Amino acid sequence: MRAVLLLAAAMLMGAASPKITPNDIVAKSPAGAWKTIAPDDLLVMDLAGGGRVVIQLAPRFAPVHVANIRALARGSYWNGATIYRLQDNYVAQWGLNDSDKGFPTGVVAKPPAEYTRPLNGLTIKALGSPDPYAPGAGFFDGWPVAFNRKSGWADLVHCYGTVGVGRDLSPDTGSGGELYAVIGHAPRQLDRNIAIVGRVVEGIDRLSSLPRGTEALGFYKDKAQYVPIASIRLASDIPAAERPSFEVMDTGSVTFANYLRVRANRNDDFYVRPAGGVDLCNVQVPVRRKV
Amino acid sequence: MRAVLLLAAAMLMGAASPKITPNDIVAKSPAGAWKTIAPDDLLVMDLAGGGRVVIQLAPRFAPVHVANIRALARGSYWNGATIYRLQDNYVAQWGLNDSDKGFPTGVVAKPPAEYTRPLNGLTIKALGSPDPYAPGAGFFDGWPVAFNRKSGWADLVHCYGTVGVGRDLSPDTGSGGELYAVIGHAPRQLDRNIAIVGRVVEGIDRLSSLPRGTEALGFYKDKAQYVPIASIRLASDIPAAERPSFEVMDTGSVTFANYLRVRANRNDDFYVRPAGGVDLCNVQVPVRRKV
Repeated sequence: MRAVLLLAAAMLMGAASPKITPNDIVAKSPAGAWKTIAPDDLLVMDLAGGGRVVIQLAPRFAPVHVANIRALARGSYWNGATIYRLQDNYVAQWGLNDSDKGFPTGVVAKPPAEYTRPLNGLTIKALGSPDPYAPGAGFFDGWPVAFNRKSGWADLVHCYGTVGVGRDLSPDTGSGGELYAVIGHAPRQLDRNIAIVGRVVEGIDRLSSLPRGTEALGFYKDKAQYVPIASIRLASDIPAAERPSFEVMDTGSVTFANYLRVRANRNDDFYVRPAGGVDLCNVQVPVRRKV
Repeated sequence: MRAVLLLAAAMLMGAASPKITPNDIVAKSPAGAWKTIAPDDLLVMDLAGGGRVVIQLAPRFAPVHVANIRALARGSYWNGATIYRLQDNYVAQWGLNDSDKGFPTGVVAKPPAEYTRPLNGLTIKALGSPDPYAPGAGFFDGWPVAFNRKSGWADLVHCYGTVGVGRDLSPDTGSGGELYAVIGHAPRQLDRNIAIVGRVVEGIDRLSSLPRGTEALGFYKDKAQYVPIASIRLASDIPAAERPSFEVMDTGSVTFANYLRVRANRNDDFYVRPAGGVDLCNVQVPVRRKV
């Protein structure tokens, strides 16, 4: 039939619509509603076959693991690293897998279990919808977080694009040498069971569109299938003129409050029934390239 | 480091573990805990480049749209169809896009808005965790559903693998000629705004691993990028000896109740802190090939 049936076609209409979309709010946001990500908090992974994946690190949630990752990047630990696991609707995982390579100086081989942090001191913008995994949910400093006021903990959560540290069975917490990114529906059951160190802010599609591994847990069967990584560097180690720069919407801003409200109550021309709620991982805190 | 850091390594240990995993429950389930999917409810999509995607239809939720899909398949409407849209963390969409082709006999060009159905008459297994998008959530006849007792509606929800009907702006509801499958985090904001007709029960990775489109909304820029579809048939139109067969766990069974409990309280050797809750789309009702 001559009819381009566009799911969410209204998103294309933007300014023509009298109603507002999340994208409208991002487009019209004031500069003050954004915070620049420090270059020391950006991990830049370039694939040998082309394509870049940029990760924002979260030192306030997993400081020892993040310090390890910085030391691993600076010490060129990941020379020869590959993406060796792609499990559909779950994770892409990379690193050196079963290599014998030792860690660079400064890497803590057995970090503490940085799975939660004290809630005390964090000013959280409440989600305003119930969360199945924790008594409280919201946003702190640009990150989706869950928390428990009674027990006093807060934690980063596993959403699409979240980056965590591969580990073996407890009490091992992983060094940071093997990392994964979520490429499917939020596996929130992993929250508070593994160290989350950041999120992909650009290029997640370079991971999510890779062929799935056919071995148990999505490991590639043959090493020939491994996807080679050219380099993993901190943005702060890339010459300033070449380094990418990103900014995150300030989740304490009025702009974000509006964004969150519209996310929970989509009312543009495509939607006939706003949900009146939204789940933590479906909010997607806006992150964009800084020009 | 010589240490194969396996995320969820415990899943590999299965029987060796004294604690139980969701996979254990599936493996040990009695035959009576499963229901065979009728061959009229299975849509088999074969890609021209190899690979099969099998979809279970949901006639009890969107009867007119499902009848359309059966008529479109039987009338060979999708000859020449392609996958023309891949939006990361959202959907893969296929059909004839802007073709002039008319519908086969029996297709209702403007179906009713089958976005919800009466709750009355459905026996729902409760999720037992709060849902951000509806007052109630649970499972009916193998499907994840949301509902509102006060208003009396129930609906299928958008989870990973859910298949829906592409449409233009309301009041258009889509014919069924253009379909999409969710390949990312559950876009639950679409619930009750679009007709859901089924879910992918095999081969979702054939869609999720495709290159992402670079045009607005993930449309492929060039037609050369379109992924050709060899055929879309009902299993009932495939000779019995060749047709695939699947079964779904009976969500009214004791086995499913156990599965759901363990999904919300992961306690195998990998997990140090069970969540005590689970979100509707993270339960993943077991579906398997019937041999």
